[in-house]
Amino acid sequence: MSDADDVEEANARFYRAFETLDVAEMDQVWVHGGHARCVHPGWPLLCGWDAVRTSWQRIFDNTEEMRFTLAQVTVNVGDDLAWVTCTENILSEVGERVSVTAILATNVFERTGDGWRIVHHHGSHVL
Amino acid sequence: MSDADDVEEANARFYRAFETLDVAEMDQVWVHGGHARCVHPGWPLLCGWDAVRTSWQRIFDNTEEMRFTLAQVTVNVGDDLAWVTCTENILSEVGERVSVTAILATNVFERTGDGWRIVHHHGSHVL
Repeated sequence: MSDADDVEEANARFYRAFETLDVAEMDQVWVHGGHARCVHPGWPLLCGWDAVRTSWQRIFDNTEEMRFTLAQVTVNVGDDLAWVTCTENILSEVGERVSVTAILATNVFERTGDGWRIVHHHGSHVL
Repeated sequence: MSDADDVEEANARFYRAFETLDVAEMDQVWVHGGHARCVHPGWPLLCGWDAVRTSWQRIFDNTEEMRFTLAQVTVNVGDDLAWVTCTENILSEVGERVSVTAILATNVFERTGDGWRIVHHHGSHVL
């Protein structure tokens, strides 16, 4: 597999971890550093893995189900960093409400000894 | 200057180019490739330099003045790619309306023969 394939797979793995709604799965795909960053749609910037992890726990605690269909996935790979843009078409169930939403995402990955891991996720709504 | 200083300066240069409201200044700071990407707050994903450049022209044609004060700027540098997150505190004048808005931005830079250039900008509102 090329580096681009590896990064695309790391990106898909991030969304599979998201779908499990299990923060232990997120632990496996993220960089656990103070430089990790995350912007959930409409949320303020979260700085550092502890804050990012807490946000996933909070989202997972309030979500019944979430299914992603990715579109427009493009991957750009450097020596030790890579960035991906994609559209997340999301089927989610929060409380009793089922909704379908399109989110634009920028995801940044770092090459680590354990392969590519996500270090930054920026998701936002299209108005 | 360290690589991180150079990238922070490239990031500042992008916002100075934005403030000029002159697309020729944007030409100087962007990567002109098909892989350039841009998400203006609430807009769909723009793919390729031609689409990105057209969007700047459209924004500049409809903006009287724009002043940025950056906060929470963090820089992460790899061998040939770098990524920045920051909060853009924007004073803008569109038509007769002056507004102050906070936008979260992710900016990705490529190391080129002419220094670091922006290849992706993702801006979004905090709700």
